[in-house]
Amino acid sequence: MSEQLRVGMVGYAFMGAAHSQAWRTVNHFFDLPLSARMRVVSGRSPEGVAAAAVKLGWESHTTDWRALIERDDVDLVDICTPGDTHAEIALAALAAGKHVLCEKPLANSVAEAREMVAAAAAAQAHGVRAMCGFNYRRVPAVALMRQMVAAGRIGTIRHVRAVYLQDWIVDPSFPLVWRLRKEVAGSGALGDIGAHIIDLTQYVTGQSISSVSALTETFVRERPLPSASSGLAASASSAETGEVTVDDAALFLARLNGGAIATYEATRFATGRKNGLRVEINGSLGSLVFDFERMNELSFYDGGLPGDEQGFSRILVTEPTHPYMSAWWPAGHPIGYEHTFTHEMRDLIEAIGTGTDPAPSFSDALQVQLVLDAVAQSAETSQWTKVEEV
Amino acid sequence: MSEQLRVGMVGYAFMGAAHSQAWRTVNHFFDLPLSARMRVVSGRSPEGVAAAAVKLGWESHTTDWRALIERDDVDLVDICTPGDTHAEIALAALAAGKHVLCEKPLANSVAEAREMVAAAAAAQAHGVRAMCGFNYRRVPAVALMRQMVAAGRIGTIRHVRAVYLQDWIVDPSFPLVWRLRKEVAGSGALGDIGAHIIDLTQYVTGQSISSVSALTETFVRERPLPSASSGLAASASSAETGEVTVDDAALFLARLNGGAIATYEATRFATGRKNGLRVEINGSLGSLVFDFERMNELSFYDGGLPGDEQGFSRILVTEPTHPYMSAWWPAGHPIGYEHTFTHEMRDLIEAIGTGTDPAPSFSDALQVQLVLDAVAQSAETSQWTKVEEV
Amino acid sequence: MSEQLRVGMVGYAFMGAAHSQAWRTVNHFFDLPLSARMRVVSGRSPEGVAAAAVKLGWESHTTDWRALIERDDVDLVDICTPGDTHAEIALAALAAGKHVLCEKPLANSVAEAREMVAAAAAAQAHGVRAMCGFNYRRVPAVALMRQMVAAGRIGTIRHVRAVYLQDWIVDPSFPLVWRLRKEVAGSGALGDIGAHIIDLTQYVTGQSISSVSALTETFVRERPLPSASSGLAASASSAETGEVTVDDAALFLARLNGGAIATYEATRFATGRKNGLRVEINGSLGSLVFDFERMNELSFYDGGLPGDEQGFSRILVTEPTHPYMSAWWPAGHPIGYEHTFTHEMRDLIEAIGTGTDPAPSFSDALQVQLVLDAVAQSAETSQWTKVEEV
Amino acid sequence: MSEQLRVGMVGYAFMGAAHSQAWRTVNHFFDLPLSARMRVVSGRSPEGVAAAAVKLGWESHTTDWRALIERDDVDLVDICTPGDTHAEIALAALAAGKHVLCEKPLANSVAEAREMVAAAAAAQAHGVRAMCGFNYRRVPAVALMRQMVAAGRIGTIRHVRAVYLQDWIVDPSFPLVWRLRKEVAGSGALGDIGAHIIDLTQYVTGQSISSVSALTETFVRERPLPSASSGLAASASSAETGEVTVDDAALFLARLNGGAIATYEATRFATGRKNGLRVEINGSLGSLVFDFERMNELSFYDGGLPGDEQGFSRILVTEPTHPYMSAWWPAGHPIGYEHTFTHEMRDLIEAIGTGTDPAPSFSDALQVQLVLDAVAQSAETSQWTKVEEV
Repeated sequence: MSEQLRVGMVGYAFMGAAHSQAWRTVNHFFDLPLSARMRVVSGRSPEGVAAAAVKLGWESHTTDWRALIERDDVDLVDICTPGDTHAEIALAALAAGKHVLCEKPLANSVAEAREMVAAAAAAQAHGVRAMCGFNYRRVPAVALMRQMVAAGRIGTIRHVRAVYLQDWIVDPSFPLVWRLRKEVAGSGALGDIGAHIIDLTQYVTGQSISSVSALTETFVRERPLPSASSGLAASASSAETGEVTVDDAALFLARLNGGAIATYEATRFATGRKNGLRVEINGSLGSLVFDFERMNELSFYDGGLPGDEQGFSRILVTEPTHPYMSAWWPAGHPIGYEHTFTHEMRDLIEAIGTGTDPAPSFSDALQVQLVLDAVAQSAETSQWTKVEEV
Repeated sequence: MSEQLRVGMVGYAFMGAAHSQAWRTVNHFFDLPLSARMRVVSGRSPEGVAAAAVKLGWESHTTDWRALIERDDVDLVDICTPGDTHAEIALAALAAGKHVLCEKPLANSVAEAREMVAAAAAAQAHGVRAMCGFNYRRVPAVALMRQMVAAGRIGTIRHVRAVYLQDWIVDPSFPLVWRLRKEVAGSGALGDIGAHIIDLTQYVTGQSISSVSALTETFVRERPLPSASSGLAASASSAETGEVTVDDAALFLARLNGGAIATYEATRFATGRKNGLRVEINGSLGSLVFDFERMNELSFYDGGLPGDEQGFSRILVTEPTHPYMSAWWPAGHPIGYEHTFTHEMRDLIEAIGTGTDPAPSFSDALQVQLVLDAVAQSAETSQWTKVEEV
Repeated sequence: MSEQLRVGMVGYAFMGAAHSQAWRTVNHFFDLPLSARMRVVSGRSPEGVAAAAVKLGWESHTTDWRALIERDDVDLVDICTPGDTHAEIALAALAAGKHVLCEKPLANSVAEAREMVAAAAAAQAHGVRAMCGFNYRRVPAVALMRQMVAAGRIGTIRHVRAVYLQDWIVDPSFPLVWRLRKEVAGSGALGDIGAHIIDLTQYVTGQSISSVSALTETFVRERPLPSASSGLAASASSAETGEVTVDDAALFLARLNGGAIATYEATRFATGRKNGLRVEINGSLGSLVFDFERMNELSFYDGGLPGDEQGFSRILVTEPTHPYMSAWWPAGHPIGYEHTFTHEMRDLIEAIGTGTDPAPSFSDALQVQLVLDAVAQSAETSQWTKVEEV
Repeated sequence: MSEQLRVGMVGYAFMGAAHSQAWRTVNHFFDLPLSARMRVVSGRSPEGVAAAAVKLGWESHTTDWRALIERDDVDLVDICTPGDTHAEIALAALAAGKHVLCEKPLANSVAEAREMVAAAAAAQAHGVRAMCGFNYRRVPAVALMRQMVAAGRIGTIRHVRAVYLQDWIVDPSFPLVWRLRKEVAGSGALGDIGAHIIDLTQYVTGQSISSVSALTETFVRERPLPSASSGLAASASSAETGEVTVDDAALFLARLNGGAIATYEATRFATGRKNGLRVEINGSLGSLVFDFERMNELSFYDGGLPGDEQGFSRILVTEPTHPYMSAWWPAGHPIGYEHTFTHEMRDLIEAIGTGTDPAPSFSDALQVQLVLDAVAQSAETSQWTKVEEV
């Protein structure tokens, strides 16, 4: 293998584990201009980060993310922390001339996101690359969906129907983890999972959301304080309770700038739906449906087939000609969630290695943030709200 | 068999054919206090109604619906015409002391609907019964859904997600049939199919929609005039065109009076979806999903099962213990669309025979009309709109 | 309507009810050269047949099927009794110059079936028509499947995979109804439901089964005697028990005369499968899958589509251009089990009216009988067994 | 991490890549007594194996598998070559005191397999472990299926219905790769994929196949010689052709020693089925269905639920309490094909580390070989054939 891309990762929980598996794997399946090297991981807890370094396969560890950024042997900073720290870390990394991969959402506020976009633009002039990690774009079925829309296979897009349904906090005794606190998470279902379907549908359709009418709800407003938490799981919990300060569910109608109309729903209260990201797009010539619960499939209705033979098909997106799939196994062998991150790292390394800008850019991620902002504002004012321009 | 219920039907197109099959069939499968007799059908075209009488099995025919109502040998008037004529016919029939079954939507305007409710109330005092025909309530899977919600099987309802998707006018050369003209149809997808999911979800949840934020769209605003039309099909068409004056699609967010939040969508532009009525309800203890494309099935997620065994099930609603099903075939034998009307007639005959009020009442149907009205108003004003009280 | 086809039906249980609904309905949906008239029904119990005549809509009734046959006002005899009586009734009816519709299986023995074929051939010379009622051929999706195979859409057929799965006797306390007694039913799952998948797959592929290797099993060999029974349901049951003399399940491998190889399975012990008739056919160019639990759908894999877009599609067989469907409802409106009989009557009336031979003929049904015979013999001898020639 | 398990792998094609990813990953997700170290890979082509070592992450490489076995720094030999070389390599490795993981099928002949079992037994006395790699046992849904059967959730097993359907050689111009040559592959679909469903169903049911009646077929008997081949893919091909000496498809009926009856089918000619391993098991109390195309799901019918609520459920086998799943991602996040190998390595390392015997043992694999042998013999003789005792 060729030259190295030396990575420093900040944060080592759910996202950190997923990113680590991707960094560890990407060069074993894809031929790339650079070879990823997992130099250092940082985290607040000295014991935690030490154990994580061993478990996740990092060469060293630190409790000081600023030190990580300053290291000469780090080319890229991979930010896997909660949203309230993204801006500070990303700005510092870009200032230090490091490439940055930042988990979504880009930031907890539009103001922060705008600052990050400006910093990325300035850094780009010096060949520094910045990318935001909307991993669902890298599901092969989603990438295929994008290809087919772009190739005109479904014609003019009329409808987008997008939901992201989870149920992990349906139980009122589930504790008040950081994802339920506005000061850390920025928002609830909206920013956590709503952001994914906003990005995914805009990416696939090639259209942007221009205005929204929204509704948010918090069904359980008081929860026990957690004794400890990690990722989505949490072991409860003291008798003391605290206020849930984010939305449990966010619903909105939208108009897209290409003429499509849409419904969106993100919720953590859809009992039985574990990670139910589902998108349907209807065009004048056909339709496409994706459901992450069956991530290796894409459903396609081709209005151009003979009338008697039309129907929604179940394409197994496991053929070598499908996006990303030639790197993996023979046709018919499913891949999993973590592969979306491997594909993300593949695209990022390719971009850095060839001196091009990776997507989604910080600017793309800011645009998602502006949609989230409009949704939150609409929910508060009960008014149709225009999405601000990037 | 016992005493007769002598029926006169007004209109003989799509709904007329469906009702006829139901009247013809109902007493052969259900034991009922009254036996339906198909006395007379009316329609505007002399040749059309004569042919329809033979084809659909009516003993006589007339071009004068007022004459039909006046006949002594008619006990019940079944109204299967477009919405703009419902009020006039129903009012006359009730005034003549006839029971009335009126197809949905009850009327094209709230004012008309209110008048019909008043007339039904007055007639009720004399033992005259009035019912509105929301046939989807009578899908056994939907009736089972209602039973399960009422029995608390899914707990407190948090989310309703309802769509009714069709695609029969995606082609811009499809002609301007009566369903696309506001003066006849009242509205487009909204009143035609949106009304069904409004009624169905309110029925199943036992909650009413209290406020909405809506969006409607007409994608194709000019269409060729039809040379002839019947039901949903139409043979085009002159070179002349006319304006489409109804919505092609209607989307809305809603709050229900029991605390649930909801998304609704009715469209005729969902390519590949022929009659895609789909409803998902999430409660605190479980979820239920119904899809009319697979009308003999109900999907149920029971959060009370052992953790390792939880999952959405596919209940074949063909067991003799399921609603309406003991009358039909052995377990595992599907029924079809027309059976929903047979069930409707069954319930109506049962109510008339036992001297009770059938459901949905005109008042229930008015409430749906008020929701439709609020949706239309919200779409026009771009404001959240309260649903008026019945 | 035109000239009448006056029908006398023998037997009024499950099949009798299904046939009655079909006779009652067929002329209301299909334009046909003859109009069915339900003249007379016969049955052994005077009270039973009298009640059935009213319930099922027959003009008169008798306890003497020979009298029914002799009536001048009966043109066609419809045989809906258990298999042990088919031959005697059919022979008498043909001898009396009546058209005959005989439920499957044609007979309980090959000898009887051969006699019936000979009688039908003799009668045919005088314009008398005979047909056997394999209703599943008349599912629109199955008819479409046949059309597509015949049109070469899946190329050379390699594999047939057919199961008919039920579970109604899994419970060992289910009583010894007539279907479990060899002297009445001829065989168990094999002749009852195995016959259907044999006929269906031979019809769809256009190939005949030439040899088989079979295995049959009776899991529960002793059951309580029934107190009363009707159709598939039965209310148990005395303390006395009797021997089950038919197979609970029959499995066989087969070679078809066109080069395809096949697996077949018919069982009443597939817990959870109520009426699970499922057939998959793989050809050199594509595949087709039908599942009666979703009888309004057909799944098609077209190997000729662009590589990235290949997948099993779900064709909703509800378009007006699909077999039989123009008679019914708009696209997307499902039909049910009973419609297969209405289609059967449609085809039969069409054949009689136009003076052509209906299919499947008694000869076709004999061939199915010969396959059943080979299967039974193979199961007994544990040898590959050739299917005798018709 | 603790003590190392130093691995030498023989072969680096499809299976070699899958095993490498598993060895590389297993300790990052599971807490194990030993830490895998990827010491050396061997292969026949010097350039090929050198490139593979880099690509797959092995520390060194050799063209001499005997040298690999002799190395002091190799504790375990992982055999990923075609079946004709398994015996020789495994015997040498066991003789050298190395643990052995051998891909399925254990060998190409029963004689070889018996020799391997004897060698494994001898080695076991010295603490040497041997395991055969039936990876599909390690799909979490399959492991759950086994748990549920063992816990009696579906009662007495009546039926097994197993297919493994592929279509990669439907095209007659697909070349004569090694998998189509008996001297290398032993058999065709039978040993390659039939072996998997034999092992899987015996594992899940806890019953063994005792006798079979089989049928095999080679649809395309002559194919172009390959110019080069690797794994399942192949770039054709000279004008010269050669004879296909293995089965394209193998079908058999079986009796299991616990009273169940079964159908099995393995084919490479099921157009549209890419890797369609599907197993249904019906018991007296319920049923279970697994389909590898949706490997993160298990379908369960619980006959013990209230009658109105019974139905096949779709369990998402992604909960932390499901087998193997606590190591991976939050609920609802799918895993892929390669994870089955990671689980295999997990179980193997656990067994070695704790001094217990891993499963499936060589003896278990011999038993599968004996079934394959009986199937082949039955197909040749057209006789029911008993499976020889281990």
